[in-house]
Amino acid sequence: MDTLIPRQVIDDFLSEMEVTDLNRASIRQVLMTVWNAENVTGKEFIHLEMGMPGLPPSAIGVEAQKVALDRGVPSIYPDITGIADLRTQASRFVKAFLNTDIEAKHCTPTCGTMQGTFAAFMLCSQLCPERDTILYIDPGFPVQKMQASVLGLKKASFDLADNRGEKLRDTLEGFLSKGNICCIIYSNPNNPTWMCLTEGELQIIGEMATKYDTVIVEDLAYFTMDFRRDGLGIPWQPPYQATVSRYTDNYMMMLSASKIFSYAGERISVACISDKLYERSFEALRSRYGISRFGAAYAFVMLYTMSSGVTHSVQYAMAAMMKAAVDGKYNFREDIRLYERNTRRIKEIMLKNGFNITYDKDIDEPVGGGFFFTFGYNLPDGTPMEGGQLLHELLYYGVSGIVLSSTGSARQGLRGSSSYIREDQFAVLDERLRLFNEAHKF
Amino acid sequence: MDTLIPRQVIDDFLSEMEVTDLNRASIRQVLMTVWNAENVTGKEFIHLEMGMPGLPPSAIGVEAQKVALDRGVPSIYPDITGIADLRTQASRFVKAFLNTDIEAKHCTPTCGTMQGTFAAFMLCSQLCPERDTILYIDPGFPVQKMQASVLGLKKASFDLADNRGEKLRDTLEGFLSKGNICCIIYSNPNNPTWMCLTEGELQIIGEMATKYDTVIVEDLAYFTMDFRRDGLGIPWQPPYQATVSRYTDNYMMMLSASKIFSYAGERISVACISDKLYERSFEALRSRYGISRFGAAYAFVMLYTMSSGVTHSVQYAMAAMMKAAVDGKYNFREDIRLYERNTRRIKEIMLKNGFNITYDKDIDEPVGGGFFFTFGYNLPDGTPMEGGQLLHELLYYGVSGIVLSSTGSARQGLRGSSSYIREDQFAVLDERLRLFNEAHKF
Repeated sequence: MDTLIPRQVIDDFLSEMEVTDLNRASIRQVLMTVWNAENVTGKEFIHLEMGMPGLPPSAIGVEAQKVALDRGVPSIYPDITGIADLRTQASRFVKAFLNTDIEAKHCTPTCGTMQGTFAAFMLCSQLCPERDTILYIDPGFPVQKMQASVLGLKKASFDLADNRGEKLRDTLEGFLSKGNICCIIYSNPNNPTWMCLTEGELQIIGEMATKYDTVIVEDLAYFTMDFRRDGLGIPWQPPYQATVSRYTDNYMMMLSASKIFSYAGERISVACISDKLYERSFEALRSRYGISRFGAAYAFVMLYTMSSGVTHSVQYAMAAMMKAAVDGKYNFREDIRLYERNTRRIKEIMLKNGFNITYDKDIDEPVGGGFFFTFGYNLPDGTPMEGGQLLHELLYYGVSGIVLSSTGSARQGLRGSSSYIREDQFAVLDERLRLFNEAHKF
Repeated sequence: MDTLIPRQVIDDFLSEMEVTDLNRASIRQVLMTVWNAENVTGKEFIHLEMGMPGLPPSAIGVEAQKVALDRGVPSIYPDITGIADLRTQASRFVKAFLNTDIEAKHCTPTCGTMQGTFAAFMLCSQLCPERDTILYIDPGFPVQKMQASVLGLKKASFDLADNRGEKLRDTLEGFLSKGNICCIIYSNPNNPTWMCLTEGELQIIGEMATKYDTVIVEDLAYFTMDFRRDGLGIPWQPPYQATVSRYTDNYMMMLSASKIFSYAGERISVACISDKLYERSFEALRSRYGISRFGAAYAFVMLYTMSSGVTHSVQYAMAAMMKAAVDGKYNFREDIRLYERNTRRIKEIMLKNGFNITYDKDIDEPVGGGFFFTFGYNLPDGTPMEGGQLLHELLYYGVSGIVLSSTGSARQGLRGSSSYIREDQFAVLDERLRLFNEAHKF
């Protein structure tokens, strides 16, 4: 039976990219395969593979960045620890939306959370020789595992869905008591399942971090995007975004502009490090670098050697966006709420055409809609189609995603993002999934 | 005797920064010490420590970046391998000014050469397990050594000044024949001495790279800034910038916007990798990442995990600046020629006040003026003042620099940069060095 995209177009390019198994392909490789197929066939794909903001960038950011450009900042190296106004606004932002106190000087910009976690993994793995392993609360963002591979660090992980509530404590205790975990990373809301850690679970994580003296790297890329909870994202009043910062001093929070301000292209986040952790001295750092404090080593050793700081003009954009949000003049959460609506519509289309939601429960309630979701397809015998195969077959029908195996999940399915779909594409998606289902349901 | 800046102001801050020996201080730590002293005393320093462009940023870059911002690129993740126009312009730039052929797809932007070399060091050190050492042709840029420390890589080095001409071949052969060198890094013109490798020396380096199959990382941060040579920097005609790319296929060239276009704040360079090296497959990369080609691993593994690519709007600035230069519409070399004139004036003031030029010879001619220079001070007994002490004492007189030991030099002296001095500061420098000399000459 003919497919929408000739099989050869997909298969030849994958082989040119040396991809023999989509379970092992990176998001970027999937994307390039899709771009190539689009070029060759002239048929636009439904891009569910990347978490790419489909909204225009924050106008407040763009304006502030242009003003900075006109003031001549491109010729001046940025301060490695960030321009003063950005540090101040980040500190206010953390107080206004998380109710957490962090001094301005402990908020440091990074070239996106990608750089933020790379630097954090390097630093945490150098604090103590026995601690050479990163613990991932999965499913997660595949590239954060690739970072460990690049750095030659060991990985450990477990699936959050199977370890909710009090069970989380036993599971963490099991890993941490071995003494080899240098840091724990997770995103909340969870990429890709959109499960959300509760305050109770975060308290457990925090208590374990304190008990076993390990660092929590809390990735808040999807800040306030648990859209089931009303009232998040209003400055200076509860409810506040859930965070581990209430329960331990051993944390760094990564606040990215990519999704909440639709500023992904400009590569900026702020690493907000707890006041105590930032100022804490480590002998291993002192002897290796002549700088003993955690936060100083993060900035002056890691971020410095990785890129000499963050693009100067973009720091002004970030400061302005944070300030406007904190001052109540920029309701960023309303803008990005579109992703929730789009996710709901995509899920309806999927269910209608024989697909299912792989991770559908968040403890005892349904997962909410947000930036990412998970989906799978059952074979006629009721077993799920293997994830790599599902993606491969879906590419023939002009729909992309990434395989859940790459997120650390043992479940068979794909990750999709609702962020980049246009209004006119919902009907196209419906038709393509219908064709797919027709071809596979018997 | 009183100093211009109270000793306590300098000493207290150094101790707060945990700096006990300026030989071990980073450039950023020196800079912060100076900023603090300026804040406390209200006295502006003569900033010789950082290579910070004192010129306004290229107007062509600023304009192109603003247009890109208005077109909405901040919301869109940049292609990891760079926007198409930047790759095209970089390829043209390399042909027009170096007479070297590199395909556009082998030119990849990085967040400054800082990221470019960090990624190159990681990649080169992962090609073959025995090759775990970086060979530095010194003196050099201190942070490139710090990068090796951060990555846990070994370092080897020799002083170029003692190994010129044919002697370079024997020295390189001595290092490379051990089989542990994964790459060789140098900048040309040399930071900090401004010695310039000749085409003959580059031929030796290239031949050795081929013979021992090691990668050359050629840092062209000061592209065309050998101002003794007329006619450099005119597109499509000789003379061309000296480069190793004529003599081996094992090279990557780093072309930074920081100095030549005064765009240091925005963090962009282009890594131009030889066509053959980019496409060459390595089994170690295939088994570790499922990507075997050198250039693909550089982009899709190293640069991807370090920052998810380079700030999107800045890529448009870089493309526009390169295009204007290649099209003969932007004579960037005339703008930066100011650095040569400033260096000449600073050296005159130094010589007049008892200082000397530490590295004053380039084989058989005097070193030229450029972005950096080296200087020292002889004690009454004719021996040079130790470099760390010289910097420490000079800070008391409101003049900064960095110690040559941090550049891998065994000579006692400092590195200075002429890039940030203003017209009204030459007289101030003269007066401060006079006071220093008065206090030390007996």
